[in-house]
Amino acid sequence: MANDQRLIAQLAAIRAAEPELKAFACVAGDAPAAAAAALADGPLAGRLIGIKDIFDTADLPTQYGTPIYAGHQSASDAAIVAVIRAAGGVIAGKTVTTEFAFLHPAATRNPVAPGCTPGGSSAGSAAAVAAGLIDFAVGSQTGGSTVRPASYCGIAGFKPTFGLLPTPGMKCFSWSLDTVGLFAETVEDVSEFAQVASGGRIPPPEQRPANHWRVGIPSNYPWGELSASASMAMERGVEALRAAGVQVVECEMPAWVGSAFVAHDAIQAWEAARSLKFEMAHHEAQLSPLLRDYLAACLRVTDGDYAAAQFAAQQARDGCRLWIDGIDVLLTPGAPDEPPEGYASTGASTFNRAFTLLGTPALNVPGAVGVNGRPMGVQVIAPPSEDAVCLGFGALMQDLLLRV
Amino acid sequence: MANDQRLIAQLAAIRAAEPELKAFACVAGDAPAAAAAALADGPLAGRLIGIKDIFDTADLPTQYGTPIYAGHQSASDAAIVAVIRAAGGVIAGKTVTTEFAFLHPAATRNPVAPGCTPGGSSAGSAAAVAAGLIDFAVGSQTGGSTVRPASYCGIAGFKPTFGLLPTPGMKCFSWSLDTVGLFAETVEDVSEFAQVASGGRIPPPEQRPANHWRVGIPSNYPWGELSASASMAMERGVEALRAAGVQVVECEMPAWVGSAFVAHDAIQAWEAARSLKFEMAHHEAQLSPLLRDYLAACLRVTDGDYAAAQFAAQQARDGCRLWIDGIDVLLTPGAPDEPPEGYASTGASTFNRAFTLLGTPALNVPGAVGVNGRPMGVQVIAPPSEDAVCLGFGALMQDLLLRV
Repeated sequence: MANDQRLIAQLAAIRAAEPELKAFACVAGDAPAAAAAALADGPLAGRLIGIKDIFDTADLPTQYGTPIYAGHQSASDAAIVAVIRAAGGVIAGKTVTTEFAFLHPAATRNPVAPGCTPGGSSAGSAAAVAAGLIDFAVGSQTGGSTVRPASYCGIAGFKPTFGLLPTPGMKCFSWSLDTVGLFAETVEDVSEFAQVASGGRIPPPEQRPANHWRVGIPSNYPWGELSASASMAMERGVEALRAAGVQVVECEMPAWVGSAFVAHDAIQAWEAARSLKFEMAHHEAQLSPLLRDYLAACLRVTDGDYAAAQFAAQQARDGCRLWIDGIDVLLTPGAPDEPPEGYASTGASTFNRAFTLLGTPALNVPGAVGVNGRPMGVQVIAPPSEDAVCLGFGALMQDLLLRV
Repeated sequence: MANDQRLIAQLAAIRAAEPELKAFACVAGDAPAAAAAALADGPLAGRLIGIKDIFDTADLPTQYGTPIYAGHQSASDAAIVAVIRAAGGVIAGKTVTTEFAFLHPAATRNPVAPGCTPGGSSAGSAAAVAAGLIDFAVGSQTGGSTVRPASYCGIAGFKPTFGLLPTPGMKCFSWSLDTVGLFAETVEDVSEFAQVASGGRIPPPEQRPANHWRVGIPSNYPWGELSASASMAMERGVEALRAAGVQVVECEMPAWVGSAFVAHDAIQAWEAARSLKFEMAHHEAQLSPLLRDYLAACLRVTDGDYAAAQFAAQQARDGCRLWIDGIDVLLTPGAPDEPPEGYASTGASTFNRAFTLLGTPALNVPGAVGVNGRPMGVQVIAPPSEDAVCLGFGALMQDLLLRV
């Protein structure tokens, strides 16, 4: 009963914040949420979770951020939703996604950087967690849709190794890239959520003394120079790491990162042209001009382009599996910059998309800021399947950033 | 117009065969199929394709082989359906699946072994191709649901490397195992279909002189002895290979095959309990006793069991990537036996499920028979990503079997 009251107060807080925050596409009703909570049993019992509105839910509409699917009700739950319910989690509602998880901005506001975008495409998931309204949120990442909004909203955003978390029942954009992402306020919290969501495949974060970690800091980025805010966050991170005795190694970015960055374009394009073929054929007028033009351009990517990009991707993944001599994890900015002012753009996935294609774990660690004092995350990249290493180093990095 | 008449005659032939064969859950209407054919452009133009009824189609119901979803209409196309339409393929209809692609038999008959099961779960896909009613069919494999029915129906059934073909929009049973499978009458035909369905990622079959192929024949199977029919087909295959100058090497089955075979159980169980959680909770009475009992038992698989099995699976896949010294491909039976008489069972996935978990290409090659003269396929296994090697050797194997 006390739990019921807490739950109902939490849902009320969500509804109260909603006119300003615009983080939810729909909020669970008090009665069904209380009924679910009463039956809840498992490691997520008592936890309130937001689900990005591209994942099917049997009891709430799934609208993919587009008027084409206004009021659309799926027949059953996406696999990740079923995993969460089986672990006792209660669904708070569906969090706002940009249109089909692409770039056209949603209405969601950034609760910690007033007047700025929360990023995308998992806008509502990041904003609702950053506003303290829910414990955890599920998002997704095809380019940078988990790590970037986490960076902009100053929270932990984790993209596990490709294939660890299930995508069935998630609206597809690009099947070779679409990855389930997780949000929580801190690295510790997102680690706990990852462990449960993966059925224990992601073990607890690896703990080591600071001087047993070796961190690679790229001396160059295949996609260009760092912004002032990205440099500032990286410098602060590196300084804190050195002060703690962590071994910081400047390293060349391996060639496979650059290849992955390039291959991402053709793979996403060829697959998106097919994943959204039905919507393009039957509902073109209801697509945003941004997505319509993108999908039209995607049609020019041939089978030959696609097969060549997939071959390059496979070679890059093979390289990534061998990793980089002498380092445990890479540290990069989580996004190109602080959250930009205004709502005209959700920002760019420049620092994320190569690692999405490579399938590595990628974690946004909050705690730093950019030149205007807005959140500016650092991103921890670990080798594929080394999710516990990624989270373990991330926990240390977060402690150091919050301590400075 | 001539094409139109051919198409309409093909659809009429499907309808005429249906009362006996029971391979289709629904057949496309003449007018929409002719309209699609008129617009068709691409490598599959003029080809008629059946889609297993666990893949979403925007213009035909998707019923998953269960009364729970009778008349269910999905909102858009599964990704593999969109890929096929984009390549000019015309959908003939939805082919019968067993209930949720599990073991409860469907009504479909085996067109080449009267009175026998066509196998499952892709029963309708295999039967419709074997009856010569369609050019190609899409199926799936979580245990042995593509290779086994192909073996029983005497056709080519190909399960490509895990992840090459898209599963979004396919009803999930076990996300770590569910793989799109392809059917055609011959290895040449299924190779052509695989090339298009993968957007060129699967290249044309590798061609080599017979004496440049090295084939491993397992001296032992972790799951037991061969049946008389399986031995007979293997012996005939080996004899034909030796006569053609192929290097035939008896080899121990590597330990990773046995580990994969064991790990399959807990992974499928843990994931199925979640994928079908909604149906178990809300429609239990409409499930077959076979599936209901299975799902109830699945609930006893803990997170710890699951994580351990996934860890073992990862190690087995790592072993498989290093492959077996001195051989290009493995040859095994495609199924434990000839198709069993009657319709009480769809047979067992014993010879298939380890390779499904390992994610290797696996191909049923038709041409041999068992002790009762019914189809008994041999299965070609190649290393992960070596789909062209699998198909290339399979084409040679088929030629030799048909020539003897």
